[in-house]
Amino acid sequence: MFSISLRKAPEGFLTQADIRHISKGRRDLFAGAFKTALSGMALASLPSLAKDDPNIMELPAHSKGLGQGVATNPYGVPSQYEKNIQRRESPGLTQVTQAGVSFCPLQSLFGIITPSGLHFERHHQGWWDIDPTKHRLMINGSDEKMLKRPMVFTMDELLRMPSMTRTHFIECGANSGMEWGNVAVPTVQYTHGMLSCSEFTGVPLRALLELCGVDFKRAKFVLAEGADGSSMTRTIPLSLIQNDEVLVAYGQNGEMLRPENGYPLRLVVPGVQGVSWVKYLRRIEVGDMPYATKDEVIGYADLMKDGLHRQYTSIQEVKSVITSPSGGQVLLQKGFCNISGVAWSGRGAIKRVEVSVDGGRNWRVARLQTPVMSKCLTRFQIDWSWGGDASLLMSRAVDETGHIQPTYAQNRAVRGSRGIYHNNSIQTWLVEQSGEVKNVQLS
Amino acid sequence: MFSISLRKAPEGFLTQADIRHISKGRRDLFAGAFKTALSGMALASLPSLAKDDPNIMELPAHSKGLGQGVATNPYGVPSQYEKNIQRRESPGLTQVTQAGVSFCPLQSLFGIITPSGLHFERHHQGWWDIDPTKHRLMINGSDEKMLKRPMVFTMDELLRMPSMTRTHFIECGANSGMEWGNVAVPTVQYTHGMLSCSEFTGVPLRALLELCGVDFKRAKFVLAEGADGSSMTRTIPLSLIQNDEVLVAYGQNGEMLRPENGYPLRLVVPGVQGVSWVKYLRRIEVGDMPYATKDEVIGYADLMKDGLHRQYTSIQEVKSVITSPSGGQVLLQKGFCNISGVAWSGRGAIKRVEVSVDGGRNWRVARLQTPVMSKCLTRFQIDWSWGGDASLLMSRAVDETGHIQPTYAQNRAVRGSRGIYHNNSIQTWLVEQSGEVKNVQLS
Repeated sequence: MFSISLRKAPEGFLTQADIRHISKGRRDLFAGAFKTALSGMALASLPSLAKDDPNIMELPAHSKGLGQGVATNPYGVPSQYEKNIQRRESPGLTQVTQAGVSFCPLQSLFGIITPSGLHFERHHQGWWDIDPTKHRLMINGSDEKMLKRPMVFTMDELLRMPSMTRTHFIECGANSGMEWGNVAVPTVQYTHGMLSCSEFTGVPLRALLELCGVDFKRAKFVLAEGADGSSMTRTIPLSLIQNDEVLVAYGQNGEMLRPENGYPLRLVVPGVQGVSWVKYLRRIEVGDMPYATKDEVIGYADLMKDGLHRQYTSIQEVKSVITSPSGGQVLLQKGFCNISGVAWSGRGAIKRVEVSVDGGRNWRVARLQTPVMSKCLTRFQIDWSWGGDASLLMSRAVDETGHIQPTYAQNRAVRGSRGIYHNNSIQTWLVEQSGEVKNVQLS
Repeated sequence: MFSISLRKAPEGFLTQADIRHISKGRRDLFAGAFKTALSGMALASLPSLAKDDPNIMELPAHSKGLGQGVATNPYGVPSQYEKNIQRRESPGLTQVTQAGVSFCPLQSLFGIITPSGLHFERHHQGWWDIDPTKHRLMINGSDEKMLKRPMVFTMDELLRMPSMTRTHFIECGANSGMEWGNVAVPTVQYTHGMLSCSEFTGVPLRALLELCGVDFKRAKFVLAEGADGSSMTRTIPLSLIQNDEVLVAYGQNGEMLRPENGYPLRLVVPGVQGVSWVKYLRRIEVGDMPYATKDEVIGYADLMKDGLHRQYTSIQEVKSVITSPSGGQVLLQKGFCNISGVAWSGRGAIKRVEVSVDGGRNWRVARLQTPVMSKCLTRFQIDWSWGGDASLLMSRAVDETGHIQPTYAQNRAVRGSRGIYHNNSIQTWLVEQSGEVKNVQLS
């Protein structure tokens, strides 16, 4: 699609020997990366000893006076210089705010934790700030043999139970959906921004079901129901619940859930598409077959080439994306430019991420931020020195089950071209000679 | 100090056999805990099938109408019902806002991540929101043999270098300082709230020093200097820096540092008291001896019984505290009440936390949230069923180096009674028969 001149890989790139250092500790590996940075950054281009830089030679006001006091903001906010970093509605989507989406600014984030204020939003009937003292969670069975003791829990009761805390990604099943339709939205915020990652705290659903006397021989599925106007309902197989991973969660990143993310109670279903993480959770029903509710039939199904559709696709398959440099960003100068991104899989932990800067001809293995956790974002990085030529940047993730992130063409061949859900294709960014980075799709 | 009647340990408490399950996976262990919850919560006391509860029988407004739209808050905020959870100045301290402290509400937090908006504050001359395009970091040596190429870095240059991300606690050296003085401040927010934990991202200082041509044979210490009005300066031994743990950090919990925490650049010195994590970092000087600057001589030194003081105490020793139930909270009913808290050590990972509910006569081993990370908060929990008698709750942590959290009396014997810094004693909470929880000090 684009005619680019491919550069010879510069010296200092990671080798397989470097990769083996990961198991020995990260220091040597990192030192190697930094040597690349050193060779890729012309020392002369650094403003060392730039005697005419007023920011070095003149003491700024903040070094000479009293600043603001403690607790100026009893709940702190970001710097005024970071105001542009916010969640946004996509220019490519109709603006239906109460049944819409706001996207997370992945291009500006570090590490794996998503600040709760920037967590993506997807509402089906708008968000509410529900009084937790009035919120109730009912657990019942489709009949009395399925579950002996239907119960209703208050928030206070749930909060004094034992809890579990784990860090997991959440991704909307429609993330990267516009890419299916060949709408090349400009930035990673819009291509992949229905993705966030938080530390969640709650009570395992399995434990609550046991408390209510569930019959695990009869029960095969649960229906989760939300308390917002959409009465969002999703079927979840009991097989996912029995390993204690599914949480009835109230905590997110150390504090209570945010209202837009289901305060005071949401289901956390690690590895499964976001719509099943029912917000404002008010009811769990246990049954022996899928429920096929409105929200399961109309949306989140994969339309296939033969006219049939796949229902209850729920696992978010292995996926990754480079967040920096990414679409909309500009490389202002040649030389060292760290490549960084995130990888994730609904099937477990990320095993390996490979990065190409030449459109997929050559791949190198990236460094992974540790600890690498299951069904959690994993930050990857690789050293790169931009020589000024057009370059095609791609990342490809492999998870611990051996699943490999597919190309767009591979995905199309299997899933057809009529769906908008479950697109985990490799994303390609083009760095133009001008330094501008654009969203392109390589077949 | 208090006359209490000690309860017999209820059935279902964790045994050493339970503890061994930790290595097999957490599910069985958790199931055991939940059985305790089940026996400790009288089923009849749960409002199951309470037909007269209007919160069950009547559909609330949020189930019948449209809520608010996406991106109502492009940078989201907590629920209106959580407004009371904020950082606060201590009633026990003079309110000097620009050289004061605001404390983190530990009693309301889950897991290990501190929401950045609730991160504790300690300013020496007030906080600033510094323009990052004008901020500079200079690295120089005390002479030219120490460091060959003094350099000045812009934020852009630092941001395109390879980075590392790790989660660490930060604790002020004066945390729990009022306890030294027998001022029993009422809540864990004030006893231990100069403590927070975040995912930090930045460039290892060692790599920057190498880039500048440091002579690691001559260099023994660095001086870190902040750009605020206090020109905070701290000496840090190079031995701490050479393992890549010390970061020149710009990222915190996924986004840029908050202004109160040093935006756009601070030093992250894992395991070391917070004052050395210099905020608004503008200069690093490499030398061969400690600098003994104003901030190192006047404060953060340990006054000993013999009139001498210990200087450059920097490692925050192993410590833990129960955050729930904790001072100021009230147990409204008997029965199951999960005990939860945090443990940490500046020397490495937490190995074990033990909890006593009878003032230290009997101890049980708590469950630890995984992954357990080095120099990072570790959440612990233990199941407890409150019978209604007065109870003394304590936690005691052990780290991987074998250091054990001391009692107040043990600490006093070694460190004397004249200091306010580096108090890592065991904290005791008294649960009164009324259910009220109070701060008491057991010798």
